[in-house]
Amino acid sequence: MGRGDVTPGEIVRLEGDRVVLLDQRLLPEEAVELVCRSAAEVAEAIRTLAIRGAPAIGVAAALGYALAARRGEDLDEAAATLLASRPTAVNLAWAIAELRAAGADPDRIAERALELQREEIARSRAMSDHALALFEPGGARVLTHCNTGALATGGHGSALGAVRTAFERGLVEHVWVDETRPLLQGSRLTAWELERAGVPFAVIVDSAAGSLLARGEVTHVVVGADRIAANGDVANKIGTYGLAVLATHHGIPFLVVAPTSTVDPEMVSGAGIPVEQRPAAEVSARFPAANPAFDVTPAALVTAIVTELGVHRAPFRESLAR
Amino acid sequence: MGRGDVTPGEIVRLEGDRVVLLDQRLLPEEAVELVCRSAAEVAEAIRTLAIRGAPAIGVAAALGYALAARRGEDLDEAAATLLASRPTAVNLAWAIAELRAAGADPDRIAERALELQREEIARSRAMSDHALALFEPGGARVLTHCNTGALATGGHGSALGAVRTAFERGLVEHVWVDETRPLLQGSRLTAWELERAGVPFAVIVDSAAGSLLARGEVTHVVVGADRIAANGDVANKIGTYGLAVLATHHGIPFLVVAPTSTVDPEMVSGAGIPVEQRPAAEVSARFPAANPAFDVTPAALVTAIVTELGVHRAPFRESLAR
Repeated sequence: MGRGDVTPGEIVRLEGDRVVLLDQRLLPEEAVELVCRSAAEVAEAIRTLAIRGAPAIGVAAALGYALAARRGEDLDEAAATLLASRPTAVNLAWAIAELRAAGADPDRIAERALELQREEIARSRAMSDHALALFEPGGARVLTHCNTGALATGGHGSALGAVRTAFERGLVEHVWVDETRPLLQGSRLTAWELERAGVPFAVIVDSAAGSLLARGEVTHVVVGADRIAANGDVANKIGTYGLAVLATHHGIPFLVVAPTSTVDPEMVSGAGIPVEQRPAAEVSARFPAANPAFDVTPAALVTAIVTELGVHRAPFRESLAR
Repeated sequence: MGRGDVTPGEIVRLEGDRVVLLDQRLLPEEAVELVCRSAAEVAEAIRTLAIRGAPAIGVAAALGYALAARRGEDLDEAAATLLASRPTAVNLAWAIAELRAAGADPDRIAERALELQREEIARSRAMSDHALALFEPGGARVLTHCNTGALATGGHGSALGAVRTAFERGLVEHVWVDETRPLLQGSRLTAWELERAGVPFAVIVDSAAGSLLARGEVTHVVVGADRIAANGDVANKIGTYGLAVLATHHGIPFLVVAPTSTVDPEMVSGAGIPVEQRPAAEVSARFPAANPAFDVTPAALVTAIVTELGVHRAPFRESLAR
């Protein structure tokens, strides 16, 4: 693949009776397409992280459901299989609910799925534009975690999209990329996207963030979200909470950029968000290990949440409800 | 290698005209001995982390200097080479200074080097005993970072030695082991030592610490040190500072266990401690990376420092000077 933007169609697309997606497990070494021929195969691609990122798995699930409809699969079963693939991101449930509401006609379902994909892309752009208000002129040095770019959203990106847009406007001069253990979405995917986009960056081990903040090397921490509760608590990739505590300790802004499809109005607070426990072998092949994939950052540590509707600040319950 | 304690002689020993050490880079897969036949080869073993841990590299440098004396090497050059191998741990400089004071007779130097090794082992035991006062009855759940066990000290261990002793007394029920990127001293070395010792543990990615503290799963954070300034600021493995901020945020004790050979009375505060920058390739083989090996935790975030002399509390300048 060349330089420049990753296009939405590269990340995931509905193509006749197949869903084709870029296998993110092999990046950055190889850019290989994975072909899914049933909803179950799409669910498996989501479960095994061939595609990941809350908005992107929402889109993938929508296209997987549309594929099931085209193939005449049992739609209840297809929905259940897709929903069970990963528990934490609400976008999956949201996308399936939207498609269930579109009825039983395969063409109508496919049309709605493609519409959801276009909407998610539009939300990416709108978020990035709104987030510009959070950067002052003068060269921010942003720390980000995991991958929240085009690969994670199927569009321009959430947190990383905002950082890229701010860079293009001259508001960001450097990006610190947490490698994001255990699966290295930062050093594999975010680094790959930033290199293609020509944004200056350096990868660090996750635990180096504190020393950079202590040395004044970070002006903003910017992350995405997998689910945002009604009160503004944010579930995101493991390690996000520690960054929020550090940002608060050092008095720098901790910003969350995520589309409204990530907000779960039914979830009163972060305490109820299911946190996926992934296989211990991702952490250690030899010794006992615990591997929570997400953590929850209390709203009190969040400076602002940026959605496609604008910049939300505390009290988030009111701000997000609008 | 079998179960049970790692013996000091397994970790590093002076044997005729060779220094023999356990190559920690290959653990836990292989336990292979590395034979060094000159001070320069010992320095190279330290530089490349075949042996690491502040007290252990102090001992290795002492034995390397004794080896140089036996072989009739230029002692000024041997001292300079050993001193240049790693910059942050003060134990190296301390050990060399002790041997320089022993004169020029090879037998006297070797005798003093072996004495330093025995003293370091005795300090390990004494620290662990003093640290018992910091655990209440009832089953602590300890989080630790990097490796601070027998492998890191050539003896019983500093922070990990204290945890093991507290476990043997029934004061610790579980240990969370930070994997400690980029070189995984936690998931390779600490896990290996705890398994041999029969202590219940689980490895986590470094960034999962915050979520465990938030869930009340951690009662104590216990770490070692590479250099402690006169005011109590603590240089230790990258990631330590973030743990100290989290422990403070959650109101749980942040304990440092290290021998007095790690205290640098000449260093007024942590700001002056040189922080080793290691190769970017340890973090990413493909993209730009920053790789500071250590960070500095301000004394204000440290609950107590345990040395072989006892438990030191703020104000550390007075407490450490005694």
